[in-house]
Amino acid sequence: MPIHAREWHLAARPHGEPTPEDFRLVEVEHPDPAEGQVVVRMVAMSVDPYMRGRMRLGPSYAAPWEVGEVMKGGAVGRVVESRSPDVPEGALVLTDAAWRDVAVLDARHVRQLPATGLPLTWSLGVLGMPGLTAYAGLFRVGAFREGDAVFVSGAAGAVGSAVGQFARLRGASAVVGSAGSPEKVAWLREIGFTAAFDYHDGRVRDLLAQAAPDGVDVFFDNVGGEHLDAALGALHVHGRAVICGSISNYNATETVPGPRNFSSLMISKRLAVTGLLVSDHTDLHREFTETVSGWIRSGDLVVRETVYEGLDNAVPAFLDLLKGANTGKMVVRLAPDPD
Amino acid sequence: MPIHAREWHLAARPHGEPTPEDFRLVEVEHPDPAEGQVVVRMVAMSVDPYMRGRMRLGPSYAAPWEVGEVMKGGAVGRVVESRSPDVPEGALVLTDAAWRDVAVLDARHVRQLPATGLPLTWSLGVLGMPGLTAYAGLFRVGAFREGDAVFVSGAAGAVGSAVGQFARLRGASAVVGSAGSPEKVAWLREIGFTAAFDYHDGRVRDLLAQAAPDGVDVFFDNVGGEHLDAALGALHVHGRAVICGSISNYNATETVPGPRNFSSLMISKRLAVTGLLVSDHTDLHREFTETVSGWIRSGDLVVRETVYEGLDNAVPAFLDLLKGANTGKMVVRLAPDPD
Repeated sequence: MPIHAREWHLAARPHGEPTPEDFRLVEVEHPDPAEGQVVVRMVAMSVDPYMRGRMRLGPSYAAPWEVGEVMKGGAVGRVVESRSPDVPEGALVLTDAAWRDVAVLDARHVRQLPATGLPLTWSLGVLGMPGLTAYAGLFRVGAFREGDAVFVSGAAGAVGSAVGQFARLRGASAVVGSAGSPEKVAWLREIGFTAAFDYHDGRVRDLLAQAAPDGVDVFFDNVGGEHLDAALGALHVHGRAVICGSISNYNATETVPGPRNFSSLMISKRLAVTGLLVSDHTDLHREFTETVSGWIRSGDLVVRETVYEGLDNAVPAFLDLLKGANTGKMVVRLAPDPD
Repeated sequence: MPIHAREWHLAARPHGEPTPEDFRLVEVEHPDPAEGQVVVRMVAMSVDPYMRGRMRLGPSYAAPWEVGEVMKGGAVGRVVESRSPDVPEGALVLTDAAWRDVAVLDARHVRQLPATGLPLTWSLGVLGMPGLTAYAGLFRVGAFREGDAVFVSGAAGAVGSAVGQFARLRGASAVVGSAGSPEKVAWLREIGFTAAFDYHDGRVRDLLAQAAPDGVDVFFDNVGGEHLDAALGALHVHGRAVICGSISNYNATETVPGPRNFSSLMISKRLAVTGLLVSDHTDLHREFTETVSGWIRSGDLVVRETVYEGLDNAVPAFLDLLKGANTGKMVVRLAPDPD
């Protein structure tokens, strides 16, 4: 019995801001699973800023999506048919195989999720890749220490809101965040940021100077551009900048200029600036999961999602994400959580 | 009996390239040394690129030189009169008290130099601050490992020529250097660089691609600007850049633009870029001295100096240094080495 699936394919490589015409929803039929394969019905799929990079040809840390083929990305789902002894029917799994509602996958390409009683989508967010990104970036790459002052750009996103809260929970002296709307700024204050600003309200340099007049020890960057410029200026001697993202540049069609007076700032303050990619830090997964699960159970960590409903809305979700429409993790729900 | 000295004072803060009019040679008379003081007759003084920063007001890691006052800088000399039990007459000492021929100093502001049989000026170069800069920058900050490929900008200078040779002596797979003349390039090849280029011969990016077609693991930067841009492009995944200097920018009168596509390169290759200041690494002094002295004794390390004669020539030496006239350490000799 063939398996019907709907999949989002990349229709064209965008120049600048992606548009709905760059994507195409395709109906396909898969044959029954072969030996060693499972059929996964997706419960929710992730849209993430890094995916903008996969639409582009050229050297990157991840292979680009191919035009005319299904796009890849994190998803959680349920195994509805199994021909693998390792993954039973009914198992809840994490895969990198959305954007689609149903996929036939080799069992080794899914990871079974333990039953936690928590929403399944959190495995795409605070307990998943974005959470580990925040954890590894702040504690390992950023060498955060109790008493440090931290500035997070794009702080209301999935990664940023985790970074800020992790810093607070580990004894930061100050946690400053930037975001793109008054509502997000208000939410950052609610979840324990000591200061937050809307970057539309002036020059980032001035807003940061007001929010963190004494400077900061660690900068966690999701935005790039003017934010990076301002933060390098605000870092203390021996400050650390973790470069996790630069969403302000993702649709750039020209060469992006770098931070001004870079060498002079680097030397006079002996700054350490390091690029972050979560795949380098999977060895932290167990420690991360235990720590963050503990913060969730104790009620110390606030988790928020922005949820779009239905596979048809995956492209609007992604395009809105790139415009900053989300607070917390952006996910696309394809089916209710299984009981 | 008053002590006659000649001193270089800062006459004016330059805008852009310094000129001889920014300096003034002054004759002064000092009173006899007080209890705890020594009189030092300088044998040689150092001119270094970092001194351009001390001519400028504004935040920096070192206090600026004051207009109308004597300039400071490394020097070696001999104690010709002592009123301190700690420093005998005749002692050879290192001080931060040139630019002048004679100084009356508190004994705690001089450091006695052991008798090594090596030229005294080497304590201003390969066995002094520039040598320790190279050692700490390559091995600690740059986390150099045997088998790494290294690119050094401004490689024929005091620091650069040490970095390249230290890398070779510790088993680099390749050592590439840039310099500003065919003579310097030839010298770099003589002292064991596996490839070298004159940055006047084209775009640095192209020249580097030719010299290091397989890329590099560590970049040690003395030049900044186009060199930094090119090197970030040539670094491997997990590559390290050590920002030691940016002599191409020292006379800039405008904001210096930063490396292009910075965030994207940092993330896709998880680069680590770190500013270097030697004063953070004085704990390495003993290890550094033993290691480098060993390389000198075994004949493995080539040491070269560019020497200008006489205090009158201190300003030409400094201005020529900023234009890259030196090969190896630039020093100004004020008296012969004592027997």
